Amino acid sequence: MDEFSQLRKYVQQFVIFTEEEWQLHQSLLTRRFLKKGEFILRQGEVCDHVTFINKGHFRVYSLVEGEELTTNFAFEGNYITDYSSFVSRQPSVDNIVAMDDAELLQLRYDQLQSAYDSSPVWQKFGRMMAEYILIFVVQRNRNMLFNTPEERYLKLIKDRPKVMERIPQQYIASYLGIKPESLSRIRKRLMEKDGINSNK
Amino acid sequence: MDEFSQLRKYVQQFVIFTEEEWQLHQSLLTRRFLKKGEFILRQGEVCDHVTFINKGHFRVYSLVEGEELTTNFAFEGNYITDYSSFVSRQPSVDNIVAMDDAELLQLRYDQLQSAYDSSPVWQKFGRMMAEYILIFVVQRNRNMLFNTPEERYLKLIKDRPKVMERIPQQYIASYLGIKPESLSRIRKRLMEKDGINSNK
Repeated sequence: MDEFSQLRKYVQQFVIFTEEEWQLHQSLLTRRFLKKGEFILRQGEVCDHVTFINKGHFRVYSLVEGEELTTNFAFEGNYITDYSSFVSRQPSVDNIVAMDDAELLQLRYDQLQSAYDSSPVWQKFGRMMAEYILIFVVQRNRNMLFNTPEERYLKLIKDRPKVMERIPQQYIASYLGIKPESLSRIRKRLMEKDGINSNK
Repeated sequence: MDEFSQLRKYVQQFVIFTEEEWQLHQSLLTRRFLKKGEFILRQGEVCDHVTFINKGHFRVYSLVEGEELTTNFAFEGNYITDYSSFVSRQPSVDNIVAMDDAELLQLRYDQLQSAYDSSPVWQKFGRMMAEYILIFVVQRNRNMLFNTPEERYLKLIKDRPKVMERIPQQYIASYLGIKPESLSRIRKRLMEKDGINSNK
């Protein structure tokens, strides 16, 4: 286990790098340490790195009419990036903040572009990453549009148990697009339902 | 000018295929004709093709609580596809309907997967398409979230003049996330403002 092993495991879900390609990949990465409350990205900046989380977890939010709207969370063993800002070179509306002390591996935009030219495996990896993020974004939109807050909550429990375990309720409520009071009501209702079921 | 020339022009914005690669691309395509009102895709189906429009234009909508919510339009010289359903192999929530008689070029999912293995240029093309669609989806979301209906309307006039010229008002209103009456009010207000400006 070294500082690259989590990333290698992650990448290998999508593509297989040769040892030589992987050594090049490693040599491009910058290791970085962040304190709780520090930012990877702030609203208005162009996202200039893809960031892999070795340690720590992050919240993504946008300021909309003075209120923080939480749109994502990310944990160790995954990437966290505003990929659409990264590829379009347009300013981001995301703030990405560390929720605890964190260790990261970062790859700069220009380095990734060079990597694309170095080997077809990078093109494939880039394609699969973009597809993966697209699916995530579209599914989140559809979830917000088609499902009730209670359905969204149940889906979150099922799909992202780490969020339930490690993220404070106020941010979960924001992520679900509801007020903290509404989340409390949903939780109460579901617990009562559970109570009834377990009495059967 | 043959039936492939518009597509070739489109593709060359992103990548350059060699003559041999392009001949292979052409040989994989199926030409298809649709009448006004016919569908490329219906809600609940897995999107099994990427579709390039040689002739005609299309509306994309989802049924949400019995109402049609229009989410996109596409015109000749562009692709129209639920790419997230296509890559994830999950059922779509999109209906894609022809707004006039149309001519299409389609590529099946399994054919595209084989093409990816045939040459790195395909991987690059696939990456750039996925990135392009991701940017479009994220920008649309942000537009809906951060901008007022009037700002969205002005942006549409600026960014997509074809929509203004060729799409009925009721669908434009739906695309902007507002009622047709609200769109009428916005248009009236802007025309009055224009009147004042031109009197200066």
